Amino acid sequence: MVAIDFWFSIGSTYSYLSVSRIEDLARARGLAVTWRAFNVRAVFQKAGYTPFADKPAKLAYMWRDLERRAAALGVPWRAAPTYPIPELERANRVAALGAREGWAADYVRAVYERWFLHDEPPGEAANLVAALRHAGVDPDDAVARADGADGIAALEAATREAEAAGVFGAPTFIVDGEMFWGDDRLEAALDWAAEN
Amino acid sequence: MVAIDFWFSIGSTYSYLSVSRIEDLARARGLAVTWRAFNVRAVFQKAGYTPFADKPAKLAYMWRDLERRAAALGVPWRAAPTYPIPELERANRVAALGAREGWAADYVRAVYERWFLHDEPPGEAANLVAALRHAGVDPDDAVARADGADGIAALEAATREAEAAGVFGAPTFIVDGEMFWGDDRLEAALDWAAEN
Repeated sequence: MVAIDFWFSIGSTYSYLSVSRIEDLARARGLAVTWRAFNVRAVFQKAGYTPFADKPAKLAYMWRDLERRAAALGVPWRAAPTYPIPELERANRVAALGAREGWAADYVRAVYERWFLHDEPPGEAANLVAALRHAGVDPDDAVARADGADGIAALEAATREAEAAGVFGAPTFIVDGEMFWGDDRLEAALDWAAEN
Repeated sequence: MVAIDFWFSIGSTYSYLSVSRIEDLARARGLAVTWRAFNVRAVFQKAGYTPFADKPAKLAYMWRDLERRAAALGVPWRAAPTYPIPELERANRVAALGAREGWAADYVRAVYERWFLHDEPPGEAANLVAALRHAGVDPDDAVARADGADGIAALEAATREAEAAGVFGAPTFIVDGEMFWGDDRLEAALDWAAEN
């Protein structure tokens, strides 16, 4: 089965659409999804880049565009949630462990649902507990491991791997070295995987 | 007839796709296109933003993505042309006059064709002469006017108007106050105009 690498970073807003859609769309094409967490904030900081912090017009547009896209794609929408999120690193350290242990997809989908539909910021206690329980994982154990040396190293290694692959933002999809950036390229990435 | 404001800036790479496609797509939906040139570089400079200059991974991806999108959309493609272009301002000053006088669409389409298919940078002599003649305009007269006080004022006024409307990049489409950014939102903008 052809696999598509799904580089996501909890905290990325457009990733909500991809996290909600990718498994169904991939299954319909007979493709497997490899969920890969990375720290997009570290990538931005290294590049001296802020996507929205100092760009109010672009930030306002992003929320309007996201709402329209969610409606068009049938993804549930309530209102713009807390953004940016303070605990981006912890949320993704947990996801990096989940990627290694096979429960990332369930955890990340629940994280985004709690964030976008209940305004529980990822990486904070309420979100962690709900999302990890949903994924069948003990929250205390997973968070302790994520905050330890192993979790820190797992996210750092994944972030280096993402950068080495040319990733500069989230979500990014890679199929056999061919890169696609942005939720609005998800279908193109899946079609590429199905055809090549 | 409902009109769609097409805010473009010669020098924007993805605008090649919109410039090539918008008139046919709008006509098919019974919509009119209002061509509006602005100085996207001035908007970026004011925001302290550089889209690609210090982001080599993003720059490389942009060209690959643009090539794939051109192929998927049936837009002619040769190779990545000269970028960024030195004479962005002159090219857009001429376009601002064309927008006022009704020949912007013909000029801008020819500008992009000479740039992308013949690597003649916009705003330089070869491109200006070919594109203005194609639009039925005397090149010497148009360039002299564009470089004078009138051309400078026309582009500055249009750029202020774009910023006041919330425009932060190119291409941008505005329908009745609803904004869409990027060639990959062109169809959504046209559908919005047709439905609202």
